[in-house]
Amino acid sequence: MARKRNLRLLLEYDGTDFFGWQIQKDRRTVQGELRAAVEKVSGKTPTIIGAGRTDAGVHASGQVANFHTSSMIPARKWARALNARLPEDVSVRSVDQVDLEFHSQYAARSKIYRYRVLNRAERSALLRRDTHLVRSGLDVDAMASAARPLVGTHDFRSFGSEMSKKEKTTRTILSFDVTRGDGTVDFLVHGTGFLYNQVRSMVGTLLEVGLGKHPPRWVETVRDARDRRQAGANVPARGLTLVEVLYDEG
Amino acid sequence: MARKRNLRLLLEYDGTDFFGWQIQKDRRTVQGELRAAVEKVSGKTPTIIGAGRTDAGVHASGQVANFHTSSMIPARKWARALNARLPEDVSVRSVDQVDLEFHSQYAARSKIYRYRVLNRAERSALLRRDTHLVRSGLDVDAMASAARPLVGTHDFRSFGSEMSKKEKTTRTILSFDVTRGDGTVDFLVHGTGFLYNQVRSMVGTLLEVGLGKHPPRWVETVRDARDRRQAGANVPARGLTLVEVLYDEG
Repeated sequence: MARKRNLRLLLEYDGTDFFGWQIQKDRRTVQGELRAAVEKVSGKTPTIIGAGRTDAGVHASGQVANFHTSSMIPARKWARALNARLPEDVSVRSVDQVDLEFHSQYAARSKIYRYRVLNRAERSALLRRDTHLVRSGLDVDAMASAARPLVGTHDFRSFGSEMSKKEKTTRTILSFDVTRGDGTVDFLVHGTGFLYNQVRSMVGTLLEVGLGKHPPRWVETVRDARDRRQAGANVPARGLTLVEVLYDEG
Repeated sequence: MARKRNLRLLLEYDGTDFFGWQIQKDRRTVQGELRAAVEKVSGKTPTIIGAGRTDAGVHASGQVANFHTSSMIPARKWARALNARLPEDVSVRSVDQVDLEFHSQYAARSKIYRYRVLNRAERSALLRRDTHLVRSGLDVDAMASAARPLVGTHDFRSFGSEMSKKEKTTRTILSFDVTRGDGTVDFLVHGTGFLYNQVRSMVGTLLEVGLGKHPPRWVETVRDARDRRQAGANVPARGLTLVEVLYDEG
């Protein structure tokens, strides 16, 4: 009998036309498309483990997943084989053979997300899939300053969704950068873990500062209130991209 | 009777799902969608003049067009009105009232096109719409050097398509830069005019140098041959974007 191997995938996807990462019955999902592609290549239905369960409409340029297989196809041939069978809005950047025990979700140490706002008067045909349009001018310096109290280990209950009162809501944000690009504003968040919708809630809160509705110091008040109703509205999924998943091995 | 005005549009479009710029019967075209949107706003069917007739699959981040209207709607309200009626893959960046005589095609002094190659082993879900995949490594320095004899005023017959022998094939290229980006290689071409398919033919020729099939000096030989069969194959439309149209007024 062929020996089992564990293969790790580095993935990209355009989340626009997916109901998110996780397999759901009668829904088009990234995990579902991947499972079907691996099945076509290996003849067996695998269990695909993903580092993060991205929501409907959220993109990834660096999602990580893994699965076990007894197929004899060498790791270096898997990327091409899967890309030939996956739909055009999912792609495999690379495939590596890893320790049998490696688990892409449990072994993940931190993740980097990018939220991209298009900050101009009119919508863009070219950037429509991965930006959120904000027509009014944004004060980027004020938002960068307001993001500082979100870095560190805090109770982020104010920025979570669908939580029970008993749920632990302390998380650690390692860095939070707000920078202006070519007509865009990028929010780059690096954290060891996130509450459900935390990035979209934090960005929505910072936008209220950027629009001049609140001073930068208001964000710390929102954080300390531990009350979801204090924060800004969640920004739409389309602006969010999972950029990188980091592991100990580097 | 209302006075006629001439409105100039700065346009973006994702060319993927269009049969190019120019109106064709029973085909989805950018000019056709624009005409329909202006008609909805003004109640009159306009003649839309475009600076350049981009082919099927070619994108624009800075196409220019103009039309005459007797509508009383001020120029500053047109962009929002058109964007609300155009499909999501076309958008108007801005609208300005210009001299009645302004003609976006005849007045154009030069155009800048960008051709973007994705240079990596595997395809990309995120960049699939506006890049052309080249899996083998490319020598960017060799291509940049090979592009030099394409700058200046030359007979570009070797790089044109569908020409009669009598057709004038002398054009002027003002600059031609080849640079490496994040996994991509960009060809930025600025010229006062182009033969049909000239950019795609020049890039296809430079790629043969980048792949090591020919030395850089070969491109000058191709140019001087004035023979289409000497040049490389046209690269696909999807990598091409009309970036800017330049006018005297600046």
